[in-house]
Amino acid sequence: MSILIRGGRVVTASAEFVGDVYVEGGAVRLLGERLDLSADEVIDATGKLVLPGGIDPHTHLDMAVGRGLVTSDDFDSGTAAALFGGTTTLIDFANQEPGHSTFEALDDLKARAAGKAHCDWSCHMTVTDMAPDRLPELDALVADGISSFKMFMAYPGRLYTDDRTRFRTYRHVAGLGGVILMHAETGLVIDELVADAIAAGHTAPIWHARTRPPELAAEAIHRSAVLAKLAGVPLYIVHMNSAQGVEAMRRAKADGVEILGEVCPQYLHLDASWLERPDGGRYICSPPIRPLGHQEALWRALLAGEFTTVATDHAPFTTAERALGAEDFRLIPNGLPGVEERMSYLYSEGVVKRGLSLREFVALTSTRAAQTFGLYPRKGTIAPGADADLLVWDPQVRRTLRAADPAIHHSRVDYSCYEGLEVQGGPEVVIQGGRVAVRGGALCSRGQGRFLRRGPYARPAV
Amino acid sequence: MSILIRGGRVVTASAEFVGDVYVEGGAVRLLGERLDLSADEVIDATGKLVLPGGIDPHTHLDMAVGRGLVTSDDFDSGTAAALFGGTTTLIDFANQEPGHSTFEALDDLKARAAGKAHCDWSCHMTVTDMAPDRLPELDALVADGISSFKMFMAYPGRLYTDDRTRFRTYRHVAGLGGVILMHAETGLVIDELVADAIAAGHTAPIWHARTRPPELAAEAIHRSAVLAKLAGVPLYIVHMNSAQGVEAMRRAKADGVEILGEVCPQYLHLDASWLERPDGGRYICSPPIRPLGHQEALWRALLAGEFTTVATDHAPFTTAERALGAEDFRLIPNGLPGVEERMSYLYSEGVVKRGLSLREFVALTSTRAAQTFGLYPRKGTIAPGADADLLVWDPQVRRTLRAADPAIHHSRVDYSCYEGLEVQGGPEVVIQGGRVAVRGGALCSRGQGRFLRRGPYARPAV
Amino acid sequence: MSILIRGGRVVTASAEFVGDVYVEGGAVRLLGERLDLSADEVIDATGKLVLPGGIDPHTHLDMAVGRGLVTSDDFDSGTAAALFGGTTTLIDFANQEPGHSTFEALDDLKARAAGKAHCDWSCHMTVTDMAPDRLPELDALVADGISSFKMFMAYPGRLYTDDRTRFRTYRHVAGLGGVILMHAETGLVIDELVADAIAAGHTAPIWHARTRPPELAAEAIHRSAVLAKLAGVPLYIVHMNSAQGVEAMRRAKADGVEILGEVCPQYLHLDASWLERPDGGRYICSPPIRPLGHQEALWRALLAGEFTTVATDHAPFTTAERALGAEDFRLIPNGLPGVEERMSYLYSEGVVKRGLSLREFVALTSTRAAQTFGLYPRKGTIAPGADADLLVWDPQVRRTLRAADPAIHHSRVDYSCYEGLEVQGGPEVVIQGGRVAVRGGALCSRGQGRFLRRGPYARPAV
Amino acid sequence: MSILIRGGRVVTASAEFVGDVYVEGGAVRLLGERLDLSADEVIDATGKLVLPGGIDPHTHLDMAVGRGLVTSDDFDSGTAAALFGGTTTLIDFANQEPGHSTFEALDDLKARAAGKAHCDWSCHMTVTDMAPDRLPELDALVADGISSFKMFMAYPGRLYTDDRTRFRTYRHVAGLGGVILMHAETGLVIDELVADAIAAGHTAPIWHARTRPPELAAEAIHRSAVLAKLAGVPLYIVHMNSAQGVEAMRRAKADGVEILGEVCPQYLHLDASWLERPDGGRYICSPPIRPLGHQEALWRALLAGEFTTVATDHAPFTTAERALGAEDFRLIPNGLPGVEERMSYLYSEGVVKRGLSLREFVALTSTRAAQTFGLYPRKGTIAPGADADLLVWDPQVRRTLRAADPAIHHSRVDYSCYEGLEVQGGPEVVIQGGRVAVRGGALCSRGQGRFLRRGPYARPAV
Repeated sequence: MSILIRGGRVVTASAEFVGDVYVEGGAVRLLGERLDLSADEVIDATGKLVLPGGIDPHTHLDMAVGRGLVTSDDFDSGTAAALFGGTTTLIDFANQEPGHSTFEALDDLKARAAGKAHCDWSCHMTVTDMAPDRLPELDALVADGISSFKMFMAYPGRLYTDDRTRFRTYRHVAGLGGVILMHAETGLVIDELVADAIAAGHTAPIWHARTRPPELAAEAIHRSAVLAKLAGVPLYIVHMNSAQGVEAMRRAKADGVEILGEVCPQYLHLDASWLERPDGGRYICSPPIRPLGHQEALWRALLAGEFTTVATDHAPFTTAERALGAEDFRLIPNGLPGVEERMSYLYSEGVVKRGLSLREFVALTSTRAAQTFGLYPRKGTIAPGADADLLVWDPQVRRTLRAADPAIHHSRVDYSCYEGLEVQGGPEVVIQGGRVAVRGGALCSRGQGRFLRRGPYARPAV
Repeated sequence: MSILIRGGRVVTASAEFVGDVYVEGGAVRLLGERLDLSADEVIDATGKLVLPGGIDPHTHLDMAVGRGLVTSDDFDSGTAAALFGGTTTLIDFANQEPGHSTFEALDDLKARAAGKAHCDWSCHMTVTDMAPDRLPELDALVADGISSFKMFMAYPGRLYTDDRTRFRTYRHVAGLGGVILMHAETGLVIDELVADAIAAGHTAPIWHARTRPPELAAEAIHRSAVLAKLAGVPLYIVHMNSAQGVEAMRRAKADGVEILGEVCPQYLHLDASWLERPDGGRYICSPPIRPLGHQEALWRALLAGEFTTVATDHAPFTTAERALGAEDFRLIPNGLPGVEERMSYLYSEGVVKRGLSLREFVALTSTRAAQTFGLYPRKGTIAPGADADLLVWDPQVRRTLRAADPAIHHSRVDYSCYEGLEVQGGPEVVIQGGRVAVRGGALCSRGQGRFLRRGPYARPAV
Repeated sequence: MSILIRGGRVVTASAEFVGDVYVEGGAVRLLGERLDLSADEVIDATGKLVLPGGIDPHTHLDMAVGRGLVTSDDFDSGTAAALFGGTTTLIDFANQEPGHSTFEALDDLKARAAGKAHCDWSCHMTVTDMAPDRLPELDALVADGISSFKMFMAYPGRLYTDDRTRFRTYRHVAGLGGVILMHAETGLVIDELVADAIAAGHTAPIWHARTRPPELAAEAIHRSAVLAKLAGVPLYIVHMNSAQGVEAMRRAKADGVEILGEVCPQYLHLDASWLERPDGGRYICSPPIRPLGHQEALWRALLAGEFTTVATDHAPFTTAERALGAEDFRLIPNGLPGVEERMSYLYSEGVVKRGLSLREFVALTSTRAAQTFGLYPRKGTIAPGADADLLVWDPQVRRTLRAADPAIHHSRVDYSCYEGLEVQGGPEVVIQGGRVAVRGGALCSRGQGRFLRRGPYARPAV
Repeated sequence: MSILIRGGRVVTASAEFVGDVYVEGGAVRLLGERLDLSADEVIDATGKLVLPGGIDPHTHLDMAVGRGLVTSDDFDSGTAAALFGGTTTLIDFANQEPGHSTFEALDDLKARAAGKAHCDWSCHMTVTDMAPDRLPELDALVADGISSFKMFMAYPGRLYTDDRTRFRTYRHVAGLGGVILMHAETGLVIDELVADAIAAGHTAPIWHARTRPPELAAEAIHRSAVLAKLAGVPLYIVHMNSAQGVEAMRRAKADGVEILGEVCPQYLHLDASWLERPDGGRYICSPPIRPLGHQEALWRALLAGEFTTVATDHAPFTTAERALGAEDFRLIPNGLPGVEERMSYLYSEGVVKRGLSLREFVALTSTRAAQTFGLYPRKGTIAPGADADLLVWDPQVRRTLRAADPAIHHSRVDYSCYEGLEVQGGPEVVIQGGRVAVRGGALCSRGQGRFLRRGPYARPAV
């Protein structure tokens, strides 16, 4: 099957031209100003942008978090929502259980995705247990296309790993050409603050945020940066969300650490006052949304090119599930939805409102994730031979984000963090793997998502 | 005329594929994996790289510096040397004389270039006199395609401008969408150090360096960064060359300044001990080459992506002209040659020896200069519609740099800063404006260089 | 004449005891717990503090500023006000006029003080003109007891000196063991901002502040710190008053600069909103009082021990004189009064309200000024042989500061920056040079102030 | 008993005079220029300095470290060595055993000291186990005069405490007005590096240092500083010894942390090459002595006033005990001797050779330790009512430090870190508690040392 996209403004992270893109056999084949070709399908993109499909390197689909709770979206609804939002590749997480092998985790995740994924996907491996005799598992995983490993400095007793385990893993991953994803919060201290808050009767959602101060995110970033430099491994800080964290990243860069920062739309958009609303429990995530002021600091860093990616940390739970913690914030499952809104939000609030350049928009939503996580140049750009993951993006279309609107909300979760926000710009046609995946508000291609074997880390040059 | 470049590895700052590039009418027309086309000329690039032509944003051709001294290369020999080295666009300098209009300077430079330039070129305007009533000249220049303005904090009495004049110019240029180039050295203090050195009988070339300590470069970078931030203008620091300067740039970035750094091969390669050789006068430039240690700091910053461009500050004077200052370093004309060696040096010492990525090589030698100086996306990338400035780059060829070898040294100056250095990698075919300009050691296209009207500054996203 | 002060809490910057101090012949002779001695006069200090007399290292008495304007206090009223406030030593300024020798300035100031000073005094030399052939004047001044030299980076055309002149002076003063006082504001840029503001019709007092942004104070601090380090001279920044300035001082310290900071009560107390009051012109000084927020940053730095001294920059002009600039802020004489309020203000707002330690209070108001400016250990502490400049300080007395109250306002200026502020703590008896100078609200010793020959700079260890 | 010290130069941290000091009943009673008094004993100090007795806030006497090893000096020999060196007060450590109460540790230490101490002493409490129900012990300890608590980030399984335990302790100590002493090394990572080194056959003493890189000291300083600021507790970093550590302290200060640094003579004097000598095992301590370069960085910081104290971490083991680890550096007991050399070393290398001021010498060796650890103003200065701990210091005497010379080496350990170093300056007479303790090379007062109940932390203002 062949597709010819005509007359759009083709934008990649380092090129821009008005012209045509010809797709065949799942890949981009030709770029030209006016291609003299026929195709099975011709799409007129005049007045539109043609962009690389989005890559969201941070989602949690069909993830069990205990007490019978599972994130609201599985690989069916989650990848559908992604595609509707312009994201053609997801990187989810296989989560090792302490005492169990990482392979089990990978098998489990693949089973959950089997036959359901509508877009391409891969996963990072969350490592919670890495005694020396488990290190060979990492070699096998890298050989198998899993080159990125997530670790937690928070959640003692569950996901937490200590400095020694992390350092051991860093060094081994460095030797394999991989990259570390870090949840950077000083969990042991947070637990003390939480215990004190609960003892003092502070059980409301806002106390979730008050017991996780940004200083502890900055501390954890600093510490992991020092260890990463010693180990020689690149370090990708997930969901950065505070002024102090950004400053810690800056200092680490100045100290020669290969450190990369991810930010998420919810941290750019929401502030801690949302946690004090009657439905505050719906906005609990970790690290928490921050007091007013941090958002502006994050936008400044984003516009100055300090972040590598914009990802979602999509981890939806329903309003009812949130309400389980009405009396005790510790019982509220953590995580916010957003896989569908990511690109529209950033385009509207970034490109339209704040002057973010189109090239940087592409780099943040696609190119650098591809480079960092070993999908480049197959993904993340528009070039001959690259996968035909393409967006025909309407820069003018305006929509108001509402969870109740089935045309623009495809996640199974029953609320949106951006409820009522009017956004400008969004995908008109989404092409994934050389097929039209979304058009006219319909999902046109089902269950065709492939598991991607990823290569080693490459410094995102863009 | 049409050219088809077949089977090369096409590399831009954010894309990479093996395939074909089709050129016609001076521009790139098609990119594809295997183009089914004929062309006037077909170039087999199998095993080779196909790169955007280099842009050297810092040269001084045919520049008079007083006492009858003029840089050794005019637009004929200078642009020829550039092309032989893979550089297809130069940005030189029109230098306003105090008390005279900037237009005179531009006219003078255009006259010098007329009919001689073999590659495309433009110029920055060096501003030495910007009383309030001269500000409208800046508007006219920008309208005329000159969007970048160089100012000096050194050379009191000649090129120096004071804080007030600079700040006035910054603010006006900010409003015009332009960019400031800054020669950052605290000239007034240097003059005091020089006077003292001479009074103490220190007249040897090394004292040129000793009287211009790196602390004074860092101070000037800091000061200009503060003023640039207040004025809201992007600031491009030319020829950065010291550890302290890099640190000043880092701090400025962290403080939210839009600051960009240029480094030059001579500062990566030479150290101050060269000034103590019998022919030390040949290595005098300003800022001076630095003591051992700075080079490593510059390489580290370069590999960490901290610099925007690698330029040459090509300003050659002959060995005989240098000898005029044998008894007094103040009489030695400042400046070093290098326009031809730039890309090969960086490829060999950066890509081959130090693991610089190919994409970053392209960004440093071409893309970011195009973005910063308003030539993008016409120049600096390979995309349909862009100027067909292309290199077929042989990644394996090895040559030993020697000023006496007419096959690889086309500047009129009689020595090289890289004498005896073996480099790997260099251009095999150079296409400029859709024509083959260099092939088989011959300049195939003469006098076809165009003066480029440049647009506004764009933050280099790559 | 002998005095025995009995039973007070004697506090110096590094010692504290309850006991007696015996004074004779102008000096402290004995310290003991219960001295078994008689004396011409016995003062019962039970329940009181006994402190070293204050040293205000920054006043401008009887200073002509052009247009016939002279600061409101001469050496008579100024030193009286100082003594009433607990300050027993002033360091004023002799101001070299460009083109004239520094000796003239010193002679002029001595003539103004002759027979009038009620407390001991010295002066810094303000250098405005330091061509190489004037440098020997500095040697003579140091030999004559003037070891500190003030220079301006602001006020082009009047007090401004350029980088070269300053650097030359720094180096010479370094060799003489002296210290540089720096008025750190980037005057050339300020002048451009002022010209623009006036051109735009912005003539109100608040525009004095808006045209002197704190970034330009920080820039000047940074620049002078770099040059001071190169020159090897200690650098004392007068009237620091902004968050950015404090940060610049911190960075300079971290970079190894011998930098010392002075802060003034007016900058701790007033914010820029005062300039927007109908009588805003009364609060104009340079650098200007800063927007809300800076005051808190200054207090934090003060409490953290980052400042060396608290001085006043006492430069009073009457309300009528201020009104001359009602239509144009440039015509308002700069400077604020405060020599009498300094110690009470800092005791009340610092020690009583914010937990400043008594030892640090002594260090800030007396000891470190003595060390920095070559008066130590003759002044600044309480030890056998030291000058008997002593305060019996009532830690409980409460007063409301009012310019109209002759009991607590002895300056000739007709307003106070602290009008209506209730302060706790103040001098009950002031002993200067072994004589009771103030007691019971009366000046008991007139015209006995001596000109002090000062020694070299000593790093303030306290 | 009374003593009159005549005609010496009396120096405290903030005063200096030539005169007399009269002592009676264990305390200083009078200070004067020429006291007209008789005394039981008159000491002529003409040409000598009279200084406050030294306080060494970091010793380990009679400390068992496992495997039957005990530090070579008990309270008899250790306090004797201290006195001979001019130190009149020691602060040692009571070391809680995990699972046991802190009271046991204190009782044990008191039993070890009973009847043996020749100088005054106190102890910090080393906390290794601080579950919430143990916190009341801290209240009791503070009430009992133990206001400082040491914690370790190194030595997992023995002394290590995790972030939560430390943070809990910080907060409780903050409420009690105490101070935390921190052994700042990231022990968990060190253990991984050690395991790897041993696995690779690297067992020589130098590998002790190579597996404890300075980056991990800086990390631990940073982390503990962040937690201390959150907890509001002052943080005293013991045995700082690296350039990176000093930089971490600087940044913490700039970030508003109440952080204080201790340095030790061995880190100023020795470099890592000593570990590569045949007797390298004798120089093992933790943190380890650092490569050449760090010493100079420490001296620079010391001369710039960045350290609070110079202490010894005196923890001697004999050459024979050291040899136990000849085949495996892990078996070598950690710690170096130096309690006797501290003051002479710092006077000679600091005051005489590097221009350290006498006042700063007093502050570093005595005053600030007294302030920080709640002994001030009873100790640490010379003032009426203060304990008569006084040194008559001969600024000219020259001695060569040798472990074999019984006149100058009173520790039981059989070697010195300063073997062969000639030092200038040392105590001629040592007065402790109003008695002559050392004179003419003899210990004149035995077993009179008192256990000191200490008060709360006070910011060292000097």
